Amino acid sequence: MSQANASALVVFIGAGPGAADLITLRGARRLALAEVVLFDALIDPALREYAPNARWINVGKRGFGHATGQTQINALLLQAAQTHQYVVRLKGGDPSVFGRLEEELEALRSQGIACEVVPGVTAALAAAAQSQRPLTRRGIGRSVSLSTAMTHLGQLQASRSADTEVFYMAGRQLPALSRKLTEAGWPGTTAVCVVSRAGWPDALTTWHSVTTLADAAAPHAERPAVVTVGAGALALTHKTPCLERHPACQNEPAP
Amino acid sequence: MSQANASALVVFIGAGPGAADLITLRGARRLALAEVVLFDALIDPALREYAPNARWINVGKRGFGHATGQTQINALLLQAAQTHQYVVRLKGGDPSVFGRLEEELEALRSQGIACEVVPGVTAALAAAAQSQRPLTRRGIGRSVSLSTAMTHLGQLQASRSADTEVFYMAGRQLPALSRKLTEAGWPGTTAVCVVSRAGWPDALTTWHSVTTLADAAAPHAERPAVVTVGAGALALTHKTPCLERHPACQNEPAP
Repeated sequence: MSQANASALVVFIGAGPGAADLITLRGARRLALAEVVLFDALIDPALREYAPNARWINVGKRGFGHATGQTQINALLLQAAQTHQYVVRLKGGDPSVFGRLEEELEALRSQGIACEVVPGVTAALAAAAQSQRPLTRRGIGRSVSLSTAMTHLGQLQASRSADTEVFYMAGRQLPALSRKLTEAGWPGTTAVCVVSRAGWPDALTTWHSVTTLADAAAPHAERPAVVTVGAGALALTHKTPCLERHPACQNEPAP
Repeated sequence: MSQANASALVVFIGAGPGAADLITLRGARRLALAEVVLFDALIDPALREYAPNARWINVGKRGFGHATGQTQINALLLQAAQTHQYVVRLKGGDPSVFGRLEEELEALRSQGIACEVVPGVTAALAAAAQSQRPLTRRGIGRSVSLSTAMTHLGQLQASRSADTEVFYMAGRQLPALSRKLTEAGWPGTTAVCVVSRAGWPDALTTWHSVTTLADAAAPHAERPAVVTVGAGALALTHKTPCLERHPACQNEPAP
């Protein structure tokens, strides 16, 4: 390996759940300074407009369980930092949540390369905003847990550790997740909300119980999706008024 | 109460952890359309520049435990929606996490008023970015729990339900939290990281164990702070290189 470029800075930026306008202002401004951008598969192509003159490298990361890929990403990051002054690593969601940030930071720090991390909107927050079902509720929803439905060993898991449990990367596994939730002690009537492509015009929200999740159709299967279980999935008492000129309105079923 | 203004839209926007440039682009653009803005106490005054002609109303909310205040906020929101077409409710962090969003949505929906929610960066993510200690770690940090250290009844609580546990609004209670963490089963050597004013130039990060947290000084006491415990508080193997011209660099102690 060649010598470190001690004057390089690598900025990790959370791009948010996907839609280009859900990046932070700080993230967009740092991105505009980039000479080279290493980006994940789920990034909105419209983000390229914030750094049109940078070299954009697709490192194609999609969630956990990508060991070989991670080694390659680390090597690409080091290479970029050795040949450029200002490198951006653009990650879906927030870099500190299910982003393997620790491995990329270690690789860079081990070569003396300075890093900065700009946070982003993680998928659980975008899903709650999309469905208008807050993750915390006074009295009944005091804690929120974020975890992946799939372990890095490829096994499905579910837990019951908080009032609201949010599972990332679960869109293909809904019937199996229903069984795991039951095994973890969630009653069959517990509310479940599935949101895919949160924040995009084609976002999709579906409502279930732990029991009915077993029969859920697969409209979320090929889309980034999160599954919210418990207090944070409960419908509010009053429905969302649906005014056609407000694109944010949704046809939500009665509670 | 007067009749609902059926054409009004109320947009809840997560302002992020405080610093004005940690709002999303979507949030800043919606804010620019506001006729009236109801905002929390911890909002950066610089955010006013995004909506200089709006009427700004400080509703002074700081976290949980503010029952009378919440009723007043709901009434102010309804009043604003009855007299304006485009109302913004600007909340610190993310609206869906410890923001009492459900109560404000219910109040508006009960009067047929349409709402939209724009997510934001919640404090746990900003703290992890600031300290460069990711909340998840491959193999050892597979779940993250977010909860408040103080209940809405004013009692201190701590739990051990996830690999990484993040406690909001705990800056004044560090010695007491140390005891509660021990009671919850966390070993005394467990890593603890406290970050206040994450994302600001005067952000402060301190490192502890569950045991030494009992003797922590009080530099975070009057500042918005989160306490991270467990896998997500662990130091990385390599220190952050500190290059003076990179303001993101921190003087981190050796692991």
